[in-house]
Amino acid sequence: MQALQVYMGNELPRINTHLDTCVQRLDPYVQPIARHVLDAGGKRLRPLLTLMAFRAFGAGQADPYSLAASLELLHSATLLHDDILDSAGLRRGRPAAHTVFGRHATILGGDALLALGNRLVAEYGDSRLTVAISDGIMRTATGEIREIAQVGNMSLTNEEYLEIVTGKTAYLIEAATRCGAILGGADDAGVENASRFGLNLGIAFQLVDDALDYGASEEEAGKSVAADLREGKATLPLILYMEGAEPEERQRLQELVRRIGVDADSPVAEVSGEDIAAVIATVQRVREAGAAERTREMAAGYAQAARQSLDGFPTSQETDLLGEALEYVVQRNK
Amino acid sequence: MQALQVYMGNELPRINTHLDTCVQRLDPYVQPIARHVLDAGGKRLRPLLTLMAFRAFGAGQADPYSLAASLELLHSATLLHDDILDSAGLRRGRPAAHTVFGRHATILGGDALLALGNRLVAEYGDSRLTVAISDGIMRTATGEIREIAQVGNMSLTNEEYLEIVTGKTAYLIEAATRCGAILGGADDAGVENASRFGLNLGIAFQLVDDALDYGASEEEAGKSVAADLREGKATLPLILYMEGAEPEERQRLQELVRRIGVDADSPVAEVSGEDIAAVIATVQRVREAGAAERTREMAAGYAQAARQSLDGFPTSQETDLLGEALEYVVQRNK
Repeated sequence: MQALQVYMGNELPRINTHLDTCVQRLDPYVQPIARHVLDAGGKRLRPLLTLMAFRAFGAGQADPYSLAASLELLHSATLLHDDILDSAGLRRGRPAAHTVFGRHATILGGDALLALGNRLVAEYGDSRLTVAISDGIMRTATGEIREIAQVGNMSLTNEEYLEIVTGKTAYLIEAATRCGAILGGADDAGVENASRFGLNLGIAFQLVDDALDYGASEEEAGKSVAADLREGKATLPLILYMEGAEPEERQRLQELVRRIGVDADSPVAEVSGEDIAAVIATVQRVREAGAAERTREMAAGYAQAARQSLDGFPTSQETDLLGEALEYVVQRNK
Repeated sequence: MQALQVYMGNELPRINTHLDTCVQRLDPYVQPIARHVLDAGGKRLRPLLTLMAFRAFGAGQADPYSLAASLELLHSATLLHDDILDSAGLRRGRPAAHTVFGRHATILGGDALLALGNRLVAEYGDSRLTVAISDGIMRTATGEIREIAQVGNMSLTNEEYLEIVTGKTAYLIEAATRCGAILGGADDAGVENASRFGLNLGIAFQLVDDALDYGASEEEAGKSVAADLREGKATLPLILYMEGAEPEERQRLQELVRRIGVDADSPVAEVSGEDIAAVIATVQRVREAGAAERTREMAAGYAQAARQSLDGFPTSQETDLLGEALEYVVQRNK
């Protein structure tokens, strides 16, 4: 993945510089909220994918950096809104925005970022871009609402889980590659290929994320381990483990989760030490059952589907880089 | 205002029918959140203004109902996000959405409505519309963040207050008339006239709202009286009253507000009965000092500015109706 590293080394400073320019278009009162989330050291996955898709098709004359930046701004807006109820109180190892700015200002800061992202995209004057972005945000919010509706339900099926995952993560990544391809002058078939690539990469990305929640130390993951379980969210590692567990174990887990995570609006601090110990022991058992590994294998399947979509891309350096990005997403350990 | 009443009688059912169609484009999980806020009996001021501006210019061939609906959806999204911290717990006499759906789902429901509003506007394929909408939302969020930053500050100047009012209310109403004019085929000068009309009407609208908070009974206003003061927000009636008050009274009020309303994120329930009585007595004194009346007079000034912008509109039935709507906004008692 050396080529990808070189590419990122070149592009990340440009993306960050452009993001900074965009943030300066916000009111001075709003800028600190935007910077708080943007300076938290995100991977800039979405803008990088937008740039690579744009260049892979190579027929676009427009400057892609505003488009790339807008994807990161929209993603940051969703992070701000998620943060409101981040029971861990940390986001990428930093205090959640709402503990710094208050809940209301954080929500509104997210709204301003959503609007700025839309504004930047609208300036290209191509309504296909605005439609893709709006759909991405609408579906992302929908996926998260569906996830909330299932909090505390440990009997989630694979299908329900994948629907949530696709919604909350993959649609915005799909929008990133779709918009890049549109601006890059791709024809309709190319745009659809780029969309499918982003969608499948996005699902793989979230599956790996969910595997990491059961497989990495707190330091490695950069966030609280077993955060999903603590919040009463059944993700694939747990679903797979539950499928193979005895009925008593399934019931025990369902009751544990009912005690600690049913209400997404209540703080986790009320959980007893005994239940915390039970959570840690559960994570250990899920890991030992190989459920995190199997989740990664499913992620590899989606990565394979994404790779097939790449066959419909023009032969170019950036198409190769998109393949490398896919490898990175599947193999990452944090 | 009989013509306006007839017009509204015809248009409100159409707007509501179209809103219902729009809501059906949302996921079944999201629809109840959208309906909760849309069914709360809003005045549909923004879509009505969009329709009237569209027809006043009269040169547009497109169907304006999606555009009109999108303005209401965007407004509803801001209501949902404001509701999260609505200490009164009521919005237009109904329970705030977050008490029904939970905080997180309410925030995300607002995001879905923002995205749907953008989506509908994008479908017209005119980026001037998307730019106007994005700017409207960005400025609305900014105005609200500025308002939060000033919570507890009873020494707000008229200028700071007007900046907040323009931000939190007038810019989205400006977007409504601006978008209507653009879709109605107005030339650049017409679009600017329509924008100024909406902006000034929006400021007048909010000033009257703030006057009502000190001048109407709880029943008349359809929301808690003195809600602004209880939340530590200095609005024009209070600012005008403070200007004419003795230093001791100013200090007393500042201390009262510091006790009851400094932290917008804390519930109002903690306020003592003594302080509640002090709030009620203050409202009485503000009213007796004629500060609510003087606020309405300032509103009339902005309405006058709006009326002048109407001179640049084509002569048409809808231009007359916009004038009537202006009268309604200034004269309303709830």
